[in-house]
Amino acid sequence: MTQGATAHKIFDWTDKIPSGPMDAALEALVRDIIGKVADKWTMLILEALEQRGTLRFTEVGREVGDISQKMLTKTLRQMESDGLVQRVVHPVIPPHVDYSLTPMGRSLGGAFCGVWLWAEAHHADIEESRQAFKVRNGAP
Amino acid sequence: MTQGATAHKIFDWTDKIPSGPMDAALEALVRDIIGKVADKWTMLILEALEQRGTLRFTEVGREVGDISQKMLTKTLRQMESDGLVQRVVHPVIPPHVDYSLTPMGRSLGGAFCGVWLWAEAHHADIEESRQAFKVRNGAP
Repeated sequence: MTQGATAHKIFDWTDKIPSGPMDAALEALVRDIIGKVADKWTMLILEALEQRGTLRFTEVGREVGDISQKMLTKTLRQMESDGLVQRVVHPVIPPHVDYSLTPMGRSLGGAFCGVWLWAEAHHADIEESRQAFKVRNGAP
Repeated sequence: MTQGATAHKIFDWTDKIPSGPMDAALEALVRDIIGKVADKWTMLILEALEQRGTLRFTEVGREVGDISQKMLTKTLRQMESDGLVQRVVHPVIPPHVDYSLTPMGRSLGGAFCGVWLWAEAHHADIEESRQAFKVRNGAP
């Protein structure tokens, strides 16, 4: 997050909150979606495209950091399938392909914003906890 | 999410939001934390413990669903190390071990709440997008 937490706009997804208990089928579907989107690569790609707008494949990889080509391809394809990312092939020679967030992708970025802010707010507590855990468990 | 979205209380993490741009070291740390917590198993375990309170190892597994023993052990250990989960060994014969969320774990559950609500709000759009993607890409 290069611009700091304050650069994020929290997307207002509250207008679409369903009310009442969920039925089992819906719960299974929501869990499946969570299984796909609750993934660090998805989160880091959302973040990169949110900050930088439209990027080529190699640029997405550079922004995300230590992701393999295979994982980048797989994650972008899943995100395209889920409607989070728009993939545009430009018919030039050689053809080039770029990626940007759809409105739904931007809204998921907004929902994840809370997790980024949480991580920023709690990093010192987490470091402290990890040290204490190491001591308790006799690690070097 | 058995009780529906309305059963979640959104934890107020806004009192700890840092301001201003992050430096590179902090950004790397936050990305590392995101890499650990942005994981479907972490999210599903947070959800289970948030809904059910204190659970034994096997009960956590049952709530989460199709998680392997190995992955459950690994994820709970990581969550304990990060200070999200408290692990208590009861000195009875045979000893039993249970798990509950720490206040920091509950606050992360609150931060992820937006993602659950997002998934509930958008599941129909995602299904539609997946169908369209299959048609575009000639899958069966």
